Amino acid sequence: MKVDADRLWRTLEEFAAIGGSAGGRVDRVALTPTDGAGRELLAGLCEEIGCTVTRDAIGNTFHRLEGSDASLAPVMIGSHLDSQPGGGRFDGALGVIGGLEVLRAIAEESPPRRSIELVNWTDEEGARFAVSCIGSSVFAGRLAIEEALGLTDADGVTVAEGLAQIGAVGDRLAAVPPHAYLELHIEQGPVLESEGKTIGVVESIVGIQWLEVRIEGASGHAGTTPAQGRRDALAAAADVIVRVGEIAASRGPAARGTVCTIEAKPNAGSVIAGEVELLVDFRHSENAELAAMVGELDRFLEQLSVRGFGCERSLAWGQEPFAMDPGCVRLVEDQAALLELGSLRMPSGAGHDAGYLSTVAPTAMVFVPCAEGISHNPRESVTALDAAAGAEVLLRSTLALCAG
Amino acid sequence: MKVDADRLWRTLEEFAAIGGSAGGRVDRVALTPTDGAGRELLAGLCEEIGCTVTRDAIGNTFHRLEGSDASLAPVMIGSHLDSQPGGGRFDGALGVIGGLEVLRAIAEESPPRRSIELVNWTDEEGARFAVSCIGSSVFAGRLAIEEALGLTDADGVTVAEGLAQIGAVGDRLAAVPPHAYLELHIEQGPVLESEGKTIGVVESIVGIQWLEVRIEGASGHAGTTPAQGRRDALAAAADVIVRVGEIAASRGPAARGTVCTIEAKPNAGSVIAGEVELLVDFRHSENAELAAMVGELDRFLEQLSVRGFGCERSLAWGQEPFAMDPGCVRLVEDQAALLELGSLRMPSGAGHDAGYLSTVAPTAMVFVPCAEGISHNPRESVTALDAAAGAEVLLRSTLALCAG
Repeated sequence: MKVDADRLWRTLEEFAAIGGSAGGRVDRVALTPTDGAGRELLAGLCEEIGCTVTRDAIGNTFHRLEGSDASLAPVMIGSHLDSQPGGGRFDGALGVIGGLEVLRAIAEESPPRRSIELVNWTDEEGARFAVSCIGSSVFAGRLAIEEALGLTDADGVTVAEGLAQIGAVGDRLAAVPPHAYLELHIEQGPVLESEGKTIGVVESIVGIQWLEVRIEGASGHAGTTPAQGRRDALAAAADVIVRVGEIAASRGPAARGTVCTIEAKPNAGSVIAGEVELLVDFRHSENAELAAMVGELDRFLEQLSVRGFGCERSLAWGQEPFAMDPGCVRLVEDQAALLELGSLRMPSGAGHDAGYLSTVAPTAMVFVPCAEGISHNPRESVTALDAAAGAEVLLRSTLALCAG
Repeated sequence: MKVDADRLWRTLEEFAAIGGSAGGRVDRVALTPTDGAGRELLAGLCEEIGCTVTRDAIGNTFHRLEGSDASLAPVMIGSHLDSQPGGGRFDGALGVIGGLEVLRAIAEESPPRRSIELVNWTDEEGARFAVSCIGSSVFAGRLAIEEALGLTDADGVTVAEGLAQIGAVGDRLAAVPPHAYLELHIEQGPVLESEGKTIGVVESIVGIQWLEVRIEGASGHAGTTPAQGRRDALAAAADVIVRVGEIAASRGPAARGTVCTIEAKPNAGSVIAGEVELLVDFRHSENAELAAMVGELDRFLEQLSVRGFGCERSLAWGQEPFAMDPGCVRLVEDQAALLELGSLRMPSGAGHDAGYLSTVAPTAMVFVPCAEGISHNPRESVTALDAAAGAEVLLRSTLALCAG
C-alpha cells in the first residue's frame, strides 16, 4: 500500500483551480461560493471511493471510510480547505487532499480495523469572521456553537447565514472524540528547508498573546521643542520594539517576539509623534514562559510611565499553547524513519486545528517544507516529492493507529 | 509713541474670524477665499491710515507708509496671513497685525525718515503647494517666479491659478532690497515660557534636512520564522529611531533629530514587517553640524546594510540655516532692555520668511511666548500682554532703523 504521488499532485492542482487565479493565488475564504465548491468536490471524490459524508452544525465535514469494526472510535485525519484572501495553494489544502490520497490508497485494499474520518474543518484561517479555527474549536468544546454561529463578517453576515448560503449546515450530533487525530500541513516556516529535513514532527503548537500597546506622549514641533522637554511617542515606541526583541531573545529559541503593526499620530512632517499604537505578538510553547514575556513587557511599560508616557496594554487576542501527544509524536517519527525520511521534532509557531483536537484526542502533526517558509501568499509552495513524502508518512501513521 | 494694546488685540480677533471656527481654529490656507478675505481686510485697514498698497507677481503685498525721505530704502516689517489647515490664530498673523499696529502708531505722529513697508508674504506655510515660504523665497531670488507659479496643489491647481482666483496678482517690479527686515512671531516652542522671558531675539534660523529612509527587510510569519533568520524591517527601523535620537543628543542643545513619520508594510497581525519608511528631520543652525548629523545617519544605514537590510536614503526637502544680522539682533535686544522686558537670544527651530529675507537685507526676528509651545493647532495662544510687548519692541526697533 502506497500513496500515488501523481494522483496526489493532480488532485492538489484540481483544488487549486477552485478560487484560483494567476501565479498560484487562491481565494477560497470560508463560507464563500469557492469554499462551497471545494467542499462539494471533496465530498464527491470521497463518495466515489465509498465514503459516507456527514456535516455537523458548524459545517465541519466528515468523510468516513468504514473500518472492519464500526464500533471503534475512528482515526481522524484532515485539515482545512478555506484559504486567506489572496492565499496560496497548499496551506490547509495539502492536509485535506493528502488525507484524501490516504483514503484512496486504503480504499483500494481491504479496510483497516478502525474507521477513518477525513475532516475538512470550517474556517481555520479566521480571515472573514476574525476568529480562527472556528470549526475545530467548536468540535473541541472550546467555542459554544451559538457563539460561533453568531460571529459576523465585515458586512454583518453571520457564520450561520454563511453556512446556509453554501448549504454547509449539517445535523451530525455533538462530537465523539476520535481515537486519534493526525494533520499534514506545510511548515509555513523556513526551518525544515534550512535543516535539509523532509518531515517535521510537531511536538507543540505555540501559545500566542497579541498585545495592543498604546503609548501617549506629547505632540510638538520637531524644530522648536528642545530635547529635554520632549515626550516623543515614536521614540518611546522604538524603545518598546527594541525591548520586545530583547525579551524574546532572552527566552531562548522557542520564544518569538514581534511588533507586527505600528500606527503613529499625527504622522506628519515637522511634528513630534504624540501617540503610537503597536501590536506586539509573543509566542511560546509553554504558558509560563509566555506569561513571563508579557510580564517583562509590562515592567518596561511601567518604566515608560515613570518617564512621563501614558501607557495602555490590552490583550487583543490570545491562544493557549497545545502539546501534541508523545505517543503519536513518536509514532509519526518512527514511520518517517522506516521510510528513511529525515525528520525533525519542532514546535509549530502558527496555530492549527490540531491544537484544538489535541484537547480531546491524542494528536500529532506532520510538516513538510515550503520554500523560504513563504505562506499566506501566492508564492506558497511545496515540491511534489515532499507532498508525497508527507502523505506517505500520514498513510503509514494512520494505518498504525487504525490497527491499535 | 506707543502701541495700543487693546486695538492690537481687537484687530487680532477681527482677523481670527476670517476662516475662523470654534475653539480658536483658523483655516486660511494660502490662495483660498479666506486668504483673499484676509488680504482685503489688511489692505483696507492700511489704506485708512494713508498707506499705498502694491503687489508683486507672486502676490506678496506691500503696505507702504511713506517716510520723509522717499528716496531711501524702506524698512520692511511683516510676516504671513496664511495658516495651516486647522491652524491657530497667531502663527504669522501676529507679525502682520503687530506690524499693522506699528504703522497705526506711527501714522498718528509725524512720519519717520525712512518709509516703512508692512509685507504679507504669500504662502509661508507650504500646506497647499508642498513648498513653504514661497513668496519670500521668490522675493529673495531663491525660487524662480516661473517655477513658483507652476507649483500645483493636490487637485492640480497651480499657484498662478490660485493667485488669479483671489485677485492677488500684482505688477510691482522685481525686489529692491529693503534697508532692513524685522519679523514678529510667536515662538512656536516652549523655551521662553519655561525660561520666564517675554522676548526672544532670534540669532539664527535652523537649517533643516528631511530625509526619507526606506528599510527593506523580509516579510515572514511572526510565529514560524526563527529569530536568527529574521530581517524584521520594523525592528531595524526602531534601531534607526533610537540612533537618530543619539545623533541629535551628541551634537548638543542646538541640534534636533526627530523621526516624524513611519509607515510599515504589510502592517498586519502575525506578519513580520518587510518594509518600513521613515521621515527623519534633522535641524541645526550650522551647516557643518547638519551635514555631520546626516553623515552619522548614513554610516548607521551602512551598518544595517551589512546586517542584510536594503537601505535607501534620499533628501525629501532641505533648507539651509540662516544667520540673523548681528547689528539688528543687538538693536532688538537693546530695545527690549530699554522697555525692561526680559529677553533671550535663541535660534528658531522652525523656518520663517525672515530666513529668506536675511539673504538680501539685515534681518532680525522678535519672538513672544506661546503657552506650552503649541502651534499649528487651534490651541495656539499668546497673551494680550505678550503680544503688545512684542509689538512695542517691533515699534521701537522699526523707529530706530528708520532713523538710521
